[in-house]
Amino acid sequence: MTSYGEAGVDLEGAERHVAGIADAVTATWASGVVGGFGGFAAGVEIPPGYQRPVLMMSTDGVGTKLELARRADRWDGVGFDLVAMCVDDLAAVGARPLGFVDYLAVGALNIDRDRSIVASVAAACAEAGCPLLGGETAEHPGVMAPDAVDLAGAVMGVVERGGELGPHRVGIGDLVIALRSPNLRSNGFSLIRSVFGADIDSHLDSMLEPSVIYSPDVMRAIGAGGVHAAAHITGGGLAGNLARALPDGYGAEIDTGTWEPPPIFDVVASQGVERSEMFATFNMGVGFCLIVDPLQFEPVKTATARHSPTTIGVITSGGGVTRS
Amino acid sequence: MTSYGEAGVDLEGAERHVAGIADAVTATWASGVVGGFGGFAAGVEIPPGYQRPVLMMSTDGVGTKLELARRADRWDGVGFDLVAMCVDDLAAVGARPLGFVDYLAVGALNIDRDRSIVASVAAACAEAGCPLLGGETAEHPGVMAPDAVDLAGAVMGVVERGGELGPHRVGIGDLVIALRSPNLRSNGFSLIRSVFGADIDSHLDSMLEPSVIYSPDVMRAIGAGGVHAAAHITGGGLAGNLARALPDGYGAEIDTGTWEPPPIFDVVASQGVERSEMFATFNMGVGFCLIVDPLQFEPVKTATARHSPTTIGVITSGGGVTRS
Repeated sequence: MTSYGEAGVDLEGAERHVAGIADAVTATWASGVVGGFGGFAAGVEIPPGYQRPVLMMSTDGVGTKLELARRADRWDGVGFDLVAMCVDDLAAVGARPLGFVDYLAVGALNIDRDRSIVASVAAACAEAGCPLLGGETAEHPGVMAPDAVDLAGAVMGVVERGGELGPHRVGIGDLVIALRSPNLRSNGFSLIRSVFGADIDSHLDSMLEPSVIYSPDVMRAIGAGGVHAAAHITGGGLAGNLARALPDGYGAEIDTGTWEPPPIFDVVASQGVERSEMFATFNMGVGFCLIVDPLQFEPVKTATARHSPTTIGVITSGGGVTRS
Repeated sequence: MTSYGEAGVDLEGAERHVAGIADAVTATWASGVVGGFGGFAAGVEIPPGYQRPVLMMSTDGVGTKLELARRADRWDGVGFDLVAMCVDDLAAVGARPLGFVDYLAVGALNIDRDRSIVASVAAACAEAGCPLLGGETAEHPGVMAPDAVDLAGAVMGVVERGGELGPHRVGIGDLVIALRSPNLRSNGFSLIRSVFGADIDSHLDSMLEPSVIYSPDVMRAIGAGGVHAAAHITGGGLAGNLARALPDGYGAEIDTGTWEPPPIFDVVASQGVERSEMFATFNMGVGFCLIVDPLQFEPVKTATARHSPTTIGVITSGGGVTRS
């Protein structure tokens, strides 16, 4: 074997792939993207109104939820999982997304599948209000199985200096407002695959429901005022992630009777996963938390109405996140 | 199996991993990083002096060079490959890197190996003059083999509006100045693995030599003036990448007698890879090209002296990139 094609790298397929995704990608370039598709890099200007812009970055992957997408051969939601994981981490510090890049690694190119995946990323970027500035589709013949897929991404965003959300703004008595998640988002899937085994196939549709993207409504809530900090509920669950938004020595008292986890979590628990493990691994119906001044929570709830905002707890002087 | 640990996700190991990389990561935060290690996102302010900053992004992965790193169990160079692939794409449009994030996917955590990998990324970020703002280390049990590794990353950077390099600035008679690469950088490794088979193991050291990071010296060359466009020579080789820097209908005449490819390329060619395939796949000793005003090339060469800058060709009115 002395050519790249014989080595398992499909250069012609790569060209068709790039041509096939061009429209979906550039459709996210509503206005102001500098540089062209196929150049070495593309960019954006900072939107007007920032005095001291701080540029933030975040990166994440879809993780082993992709293995379920592969079993179902259903790829239309994975871009929403990817973009949500990244932009909602930015939202947790108050930053608005400005640009996104995706990294797709495959054993062998599959033009239809790979176009679906990038189209899904592009659609999610459009929903997040953020251009898809670039991406890499990498073939790894002989290292990944031919039908194996991994998908990761990164986002850059902007927040006004001094306007960052975080522990430094949190006060005792602040309310914890939950933005609800109707599904698993993109966490806990290694546990799920482990407890379900082959039975997973009868649950693929509900398990593959795409992640909600909270960022646009979180930005509106921040604009309404009174948001002190926030937590994106990913691996580690409510307690693990809420703790990242609290000052040392502060705690949060969460009343788990204030909301009902969606049915998918009962399905998972019914496989023998204990309640404490459920809460430490899954979002349990709370995908994002806002920590809000108790005198200002009404406009925050209005701004996030689409996500059934629910007051689930309060910030306390005791350490740790406790559930009742 | 009803716990995350039994499902193959090593939460305690993840905590040790994060603790183990904290010093290496924050060592890249020389000044001005906003946000703390372990928060949801961190960021930077734009350096002074930009009137209309354009924010660019680029993403790439190390690719199957990682398979050789795995065979050699040698990880100290892979971060340089990753950072070089990303920041040198930005350099090709004239953008200076501001922040980097890495994505490390593994079958199972290996604390020493994974700390080495992130330390290598951090060292490369320091060399590129760019903080490592965040990262994701993802375990994919049951999807990746326990000792499998993938490494990707993304960079954001800044360029003054109107100061972008690109085809629009290129003129007939501009010189093509090569910055030399002493090794393979991070491209063509699927072909290499294919042609060498198991014999690869006797060449691992030379094949794993880390990529040169050109960005800092390219920024100095741009500051010296006269740089119109640039090309980062990655997959597709000299012709494929130089073409991305040329206006429609323009060409480049390259004299391959002006430089000597390093010995590693002879080693690869000796496996029966034809010269045309070599040039279409590998950098052949030219890792980066600057397209420069012929009256201004001296200061550009001075700025890039570390990379043995060599005039290898000229921009012509004929289409395509031709070699003689």
